Amino acid sequence: MPLDPARVVTRLRELRSLTGDEDGEQRVAWTDTWAKGRAWLVESLADLPLEVERDAAGNDWYTLRGDSDRAVLIGGHMDSVPNGGWLDGCLNVLAGAEVLRRIAEDGRPPVTVRLVDWADEEGARFGRSLFGSSAAAGSMADQDELRKLTDRDGVSLPDAVGAFDVDLDHALDAHAQLASAAAYLELHIEQGPVLESLDLPLGVVLGTFGVERHRITWTGQAAHAGSTPMDKRRDALAGAAKLALAIRDVARETGDGAVCTSGGVVCRPGIVTSVVETAEQLLDQRHLDAGKLASMLARAQELSRGFASEENVDVAWERIWSIEPILFDETLIGFADEAIREVAGTSHRLPSGPLHDAAEVSRAGVPTVMLFVQSLRGLSHTKLEDTKPEHLELSVSALDRLASKTIDWIAAK
Amino acid sequence: MPLDPARVVTRLRELRSLTGDEDGEQRVAWTDTWAKGRAWLVESLADLPLEVERDAAGNDWYTLRGDSDRAVLIGGHMDSVPNGGWLDGCLNVLAGAEVLRRIAEDGRPPVTVRLVDWADEEGARFGRSLFGSSAAAGSMADQDELRKLTDRDGVSLPDAVGAFDVDLDHALDAHAQLASAAAYLELHIEQGPVLESLDLPLGVVLGTFGVERHRITWTGQAAHAGSTPMDKRRDALAGAAKLALAIRDVARETGDGAVCTSGGVVCRPGIVTSVVETAEQLLDQRHLDAGKLASMLARAQELSRGFASEENVDVAWERIWSIEPILFDETLIGFADEAIREVAGTSHRLPSGPLHDAAEVSRAGVPTVMLFVQSLRGLSHTKLEDTKPEHLELSVSALDRLASKTIDWIAAK
Repeated sequence: MPLDPARVVTRLRELRSLTGDEDGEQRVAWTDTWAKGRAWLVESLADLPLEVERDAAGNDWYTLRGDSDRAVLIGGHMDSVPNGGWLDGCLNVLAGAEVLRRIAEDGRPPVTVRLVDWADEEGARFGRSLFGSSAAAGSMADQDELRKLTDRDGVSLPDAVGAFDVDLDHALDAHAQLASAAAYLELHIEQGPVLESLDLPLGVVLGTFGVERHRITWTGQAAHAGSTPMDKRRDALAGAAKLALAIRDVARETGDGAVCTSGGVVCRPGIVTSVVETAEQLLDQRHLDAGKLASMLARAQELSRGFASEENVDVAWERIWSIEPILFDETLIGFADEAIREVAGTSHRLPSGPLHDAAEVSRAGVPTVMLFVQSLRGLSHTKLEDTKPEHLELSVSALDRLASKTIDWIAAK
Repeated sequence: MPLDPARVVTRLRELRSLTGDEDGEQRVAWTDTWAKGRAWLVESLADLPLEVERDAAGNDWYTLRGDSDRAVLIGGHMDSVPNGGWLDGCLNVLAGAEVLRRIAEDGRPPVTVRLVDWADEEGARFGRSLFGSSAAAGSMADQDELRKLTDRDGVSLPDAVGAFDVDLDHALDAHAQLASAAAYLELHIEQGPVLESLDLPLGVVLGTFGVERHRITWTGQAAHAGSTPMDKRRDALAGAAKLALAIRDVARETGDGAVCTSGGVVCRPGIVTSVVETAEQLLDQRHLDAGKLASMLARAQELSRGFASEENVDVAWERIWSIEPILFDETLIGFADEAIREVAGTSHRLPSGPLHDAAEVSRAGVPTVMLFVQSLRGLSHTKLEDTKPEHLELSVSALDRLASKTIDWIAAK
């Protein structure tokens, strides 16, 4: 049978009625609802000649053996955030399943093709995202930290994953799965407004942004709002306000997709009758170029010191988290461009702000690329997340063509 | 006996050891510790020929009868905030008690002199300040609201005041106390840094600021910090940041002691990975001139609408509270200036940012003035609150001279 992109849309709706409710999708990793969605996927692929396997990190692998053991991987994740959208993660898997069906029905492929359903991409329950893919990539270096994580009911991560036969001490054994990997492909909704603003259904992802994430603490002096003259104040909020505005110029001047975000400021004492004594500010900076990311950070720090001096307050920086930019494979980016042009006429190259499982696989040295399909209003992680059905169908077709080109490339190597 | 200013400092220390602990003063109104402090005051004045009376609002009156029933009032409050300083409120009362002693020992005065210890100036337990003075002033218009107030243990205000024989339904009967009032005098620590910065011990208070207090809600759109280009954002924090900075210029340009304070911003969702969707900002504006206060508010609102337009976000204003400026009596301001110059050489006129019982009495039509004594580092409502003993002594002397001048003025009327 030929590829049936419309079937993917139908299947996504089936999944939504099976594992969603009025608030959205509820396939949080390491829960019964997640397991129900995964079992439904296994069942739906039971008629194909696949080897099905759960690895040591809880990732599900569907393997279609080819003439060569060298494998083209297509990935996604069935887990969602609580009250999630109907596409984030499962579009990737269900589109991959449709492509795998088409390839299987075409006969034995020249190389092995594997669909992977990564475990706990979202990290919604324990705050640690990319669980399964980082184990497979061998980059899960924080196992001592993971042992300490608990959910809001006090259940520990080791206990929660243990209920799904995952032993945290052996999760890195999943790395063996990538030994034969020759390429990794992933389709995802954009989760941003770029493609919609360009009126394009599809884009090629160049890589994932490097991220610098900091907590900046401004310390001034609490003082009575009525009795403290303006020129006697040491207002912590003033420092935070200046930086919140200035980092936008830092991003604009850096360009090439640079983003800087101040996601919040917490003021203390935070009452109407007092000048703010401490302002704790969150800053997130991202760029696809490591040097430009470092420059943006340095510039923000320099500006903050200037503002602290102007306002006679103190400023301290604390790194919360950072990751280097991850660039996808040039050849695969070219194939993805071709595939998109074939199905949609026009392609567009863009970086990914959010991280994805693809970033972990790429870090592990596997040539990787992603396709983005347009998100309506850029919304994600909410039940309002949506993409036009005709764009979903185009995305399945583009993934199929990308898979074919990639299989041919690996077979010819 | 002549006036003994040093005795006031000694008595303040006594009170501190009686009703304070390692965290500060604990004379919160409508508590046993407050009652203990008040009983100590009654006891200490027992040897003077005073009529002592508790009025319908819980205010304690100490009356020294004079040739005329027309009365000069000296006021203060024995209640403190929790973990309060050793001067706020009780300096006023103990200095007044020393002045009353001096006058009584000089023989029958030409007019009646009354010391009043107002009940619950701070509002620390129920969030309603100036309880006793507003009842006496007849401006306690919010009795239906007061009935609903509870403390953090769930005790209602009517029950708490009832334990001190105050019936909320009859609290306004205290208004009768002001029928004979011809003038009202109050000494208070500045609770701000102005006198210290001028290296002056004492100042005359021109009146209390009018206050406009608002909650400003900025509404943009939550969006992923990684996937949303800078030019596609509707960042609520940007509006709040611009206004937090701009209101400082509004105050400076208005001058004459104008103050504008943004005491806090609450951001939602307030996470590092999202553009801020809503920012709730607190704004407090104060001025001694009603017209300038209105202009400052109008200017801030105009600016906010401009920022909302620049940032493509919405802005909404909600008034939390407001009060008009209250100007003290010109003649008494002149007497206070003279009194300060006599004891300290130099006087200084300044507005009061915080409200005081004196504002309520002034609103009731009684000619009123206040003296401020220097606060170290402007600190108050903390155990770190302090004033040099020599400045405390000067303040008692100045209050005494102000009382003498006022008695002479009223007697001559």
